[in-house]
Amino acid sequence: MKILLTNDDGIYFEGLWALQKRFKQKHHVTVVAPDRERSAVGHGITLNHPLRVVKMAINGASPCWAVSGTPVDCVKLGILEILKQKPDIVISGINPGANVGVNINYSGTVSAAKEATLYGVTALAVSMNGNNTKYYDDAAGFIEELVEKAVLNALPFGTFLNVNFPDLPMKEIAGVKICRQSITLYSEYIEKRIDPRNNIYYWQGFDKIPAEEESDLDIAAVSQNYISITPIKCDMTDYQSIDKLKDWNQEFRVN
Amino acid sequence: MKILLTNDDGIYFEGLWALQKRFKQKHHVTVVAPDRERSAVGHGITLNHPLRVVKMAINGASPCWAVSGTPVDCVKLGILEILKQKPDIVISGINPGANVGVNINYSGTVSAAKEATLYGVTALAVSMNGNNTKYYDDAAGFIEELVEKAVLNALPFGTFLNVNFPDLPMKEIAGVKICRQSITLYSEYIEKRIDPRNNIYYWQGFDKIPAEEESDLDIAAVSQNYISITPIKCDMTDYQSIDKLKDWNQEFRVN
Repeated sequence: MKILLTNDDGIYFEGLWALQKRFKQKHHVTVVAPDRERSAVGHGITLNHPLRVVKMAINGASPCWAVSGTPVDCVKLGILEILKQKPDIVISGINPGANVGVNINYSGTVSAAKEATLYGVTALAVSMNGNNTKYYDDAAGFIEELVEKAVLNALPFGTFLNVNFPDLPMKEIAGVKICRQSITLYSEYIEKRIDPRNNIYYWQGFDKIPAEEESDLDIAAVSQNYISITPIKCDMTDYQSIDKLKDWNQEFRVN
Repeated sequence: MKILLTNDDGIYFEGLWALQKRFKQKHHVTVVAPDRERSAVGHGITLNHPLRVVKMAINGASPCWAVSGTPVDCVKLGILEILKQKPDIVISGINPGANVGVNINYSGTVSAAKEATLYGVTALAVSMNGNNTKYYDDAAGFIEELVEKAVLNALPFGTFLNVNFPDLPMKEIAGVKICRQSITLYSEYIEKRIDPRNNIYYWQGFDKIPAEEESDLDIAAVSQNYISITPIKCDMTDYQSIDKLKDWNQEFRVN
C-alpha cells in the first residue's frame, strides 16, 4: 500500500516515526508533516502566504517532506503535489495527548485525517492519552493490525476513524471499544497576568477532562483503559433538525 | 437579549458592523473579534503564546474588544473573561464569501458559532456569497427576523445554524431553503512558483465551487439565489458505522 503519514507535532516527533518504522516494513511510506509543532490549529489552512517544502532525511527515511504549514496543508500538498496521486491510506499521529470529546475540533491531528477523507482517501487519526508515553511502538503495532484487517474498508465515503490509546503497554490494555464522541465541554478558564510593562495578557487553560460515565463515550473508554475507536463523519448536517426547521420555514416570507 | 458578535475578518470589517448596527437598537450587543483578518483558521486556538485584548471604540460602539487570536479564542475570551457570563446568542459574521460545503471546515466564522454551541449558547454563522457585496444591511435585517422568530429555540443542544445569503438585494432573493451540507471537495490545485533566489514556493488555490444540483444542498441553494439555512451538529460521530465496526470488533483481541 501507499501510505501517507502526517501529524501536528512536527516532522521530528517520535509518535510519527513509530508509525513510519512499523509500516515501512511492508508498505511504501511517505512522510509529509509540519516543519514545527502545529498543535490546536484545527482545520486551518495557509492562504495568506505561500508554503515552503523541504525534502529531508530523518532516520534515514526517504521520501520525507517538511512543510511550513498546518497538518491540513500537509495533506493537500502531499496528495496534489508531492505524491501527485491519492495514497491508499493517510495516518495522522501518533499524537501525545488524547484527542477525544470536543478536543477533536481543535486537533490538527484529527483535522488532517478529516481532510484526507474529503479527498476520498481512507484515513485514521491516532493519539495517546499521555504526554510522555513510552508506548508508541505498541500503538503502532495495533494500528498496523487495524489497517491489515481491512476494517477501514467497512467505512462509507465521508467517514474516518479516530483512535485513542490509554498510556499503557499493550498487555495492560482492557480491550477495544467502538465509541461515540463526547460533546461535553472541558472545564476551561482564562488566566490573567501582568507583564513587566504593566500590561495585561491572558493564557487559556483547562482543568481536566470531563468525567464521562457512559462507557460508549470516547472519553470514558480511554479513561477506563480501553482503546477507543470512534467513526467520525465529515457531513455535519443535523438531519433531525431539518424537518423542524422546515415547519418553521413555511411561515417565513423573504419578499 | 445579550448578544455577542464576532467574525474571522477582523474587528473593522463592515459585515460585522452591519449586524451591530441592526441589533444594537433593541439589544445589548458586545463585539469581541480578532484584531486582524483570521480567515481559514478553522477551529484553531492560541495555546503557545498569550492573548492580548484591546478595548476599542469603533463606530462609537462600546463595549468592543479586539483580540490577538482566532475567532474561537474570541468566543472563549468573550464568554469567560469579557462578559463573564454566557450571552443569549452568539452571531459570527457577516463573512464575505459563502461558507458552504466542505468550506465550513476551514471557516473561522463557522467555527466560532460551533464553539459557542459547545458552551450551550444559541449560535449562528452568517456569510454572503460575494466578496464585494453591498447587501450586508439587507442580510442583517433577515438575521434579526430569524432571531426574533425564536426559530433558534427549536434547536437541540449541540446544533447551530449556518446561514448563507446570495449576493442580492432582499427583493431579488428567491426564498429560504433549509439545507444539508454538501461534502463534495472543491476542485483544488497547488501552484508552484520560483522566488528571486531561485527557491520553490507554493500557493494553494481552487478553481470553482462544485456544481451541486440537488437543491437541498447548501451550495445549490445559494447558487440558485436562495438563502440557505443548514443545521450543523457538534457531535461528529457516524452512528451508522458504529454497528458495522462492532461486528468487526468481535474478532479482535488486544492481548
